[in-house]
Amino acid sequence: MKTRLTLIFLIAVSIAITCVVIDRGRAQNAKQASPIYGVTIPDGYRHWELIAPALEGDPLNELRAVVGNAEAMNAYRSGTLPFPDGAILVKLAWKRTQSHEFEPASVPGAPTTVQVMVKDSKKYAASGGWGFGRFIDGKAVDQAQHETCFACHEARVQGHDYVFTRYAP
Amino acid sequence: MKTRLTLIFLIAVSIAITCVVIDRGRAQNAKQASPIYGVTIPDGYRHWELIAPALEGDPLNELRAVVGNAEAMNAYRSGTLPFPDGAILVKLAWKRTQSHEFEPASVPGAPTTVQVMVKDSKKYAASGGWGFGRFIDGKAVDQAQHETCFACHEARVQGHDYVFTRYAP
Repeated sequence: MKTRLTLIFLIAVSIAITCVVIDRGRAQNAKQASPIYGVTIPDGYRHWELIAPALEGDPLNELRAVVGNAEAMNAYRSGTLPFPDGAILVKLAWKRTQSHEFEPASVPGAPTTVQVMVKDSKKYAASGGWGFGRFIDGKAVDQAQHETCFACHEARVQGHDYVFTRYAP
Repeated sequence: MKTRLTLIFLIAVSIAITCVVIDRGRAQNAKQASPIYGVTIPDGYRHWELIAPALEGDPLNELRAVVGNAEAMNAYRSGTLPFPDGAILVKLAWKRTQSHEFEPASVPGAPTTVQVMVKDSKKYAASGGWGFGRFIDGKAVDQAQHETCFACHEARVQGHDYVFTRYAP
């Protein structure tokens, strides 16, 4: 009887340890950081407010929506530039697919990338104060892709604190 | 002296009354209700969470985004159909315009319509439990346009509680 109880106890402990290990693995995976910048996908971003939608034409052919945390939304609504430290923008993207219920419309299909910009003027001083992260299925893409982020933003939208998206009222 | 004070007092009262009248006018204008349904634009909807963006092709050529209040978002995320009473959906729409900063992208231009669906299964029993409102510059469009709302939703998306938009993850 005592042996059986000890066995059950050991099995229970093993299960508990396994669960903890699996859970940690998931958390690390979900929190994978981008190369160069160490940016992660922020918790709860899907609950953030909408800044604006967009259409990315061929070859990607994606519908997109950029959402922002409270710091970002406050800056947009008050017209504050540069964005304050702590502002975070997340761009969601989906393949654009024809609606089968309403002919003139196309709607989000499969999700593609999640792209993140984090404002920290000290940490990211070398890239206009912004850290970048591009994720597919929750995993950051490679360093070569991340090397293109700031170069493009710097060349095209330096006058808007390196941010493309404007607030759509 | 007394006459002058009385005059100043009367002017002040006139200004105060005028201000109240103007303010009421604005409030009524902002709260204009749709024909048939009496639906108004809900306060604070621009802070609501994103359900999904969409593209409406020609002839309208609009980018759109549908946002929902907490009741609507909870229903979407839990897969609850029909939507519960109190759920409200708001569709924002803007003319689609070419980005002048990034060639493959098009972005929101001038806002066009704001369209609202309010779930109240008793009040709107005759239209699938939904009340509809379509607004341009904060003003409801005419009755003829509102007569088309439910007919189209009923014909096309009866199986999704008369709602076109799906949640984009």
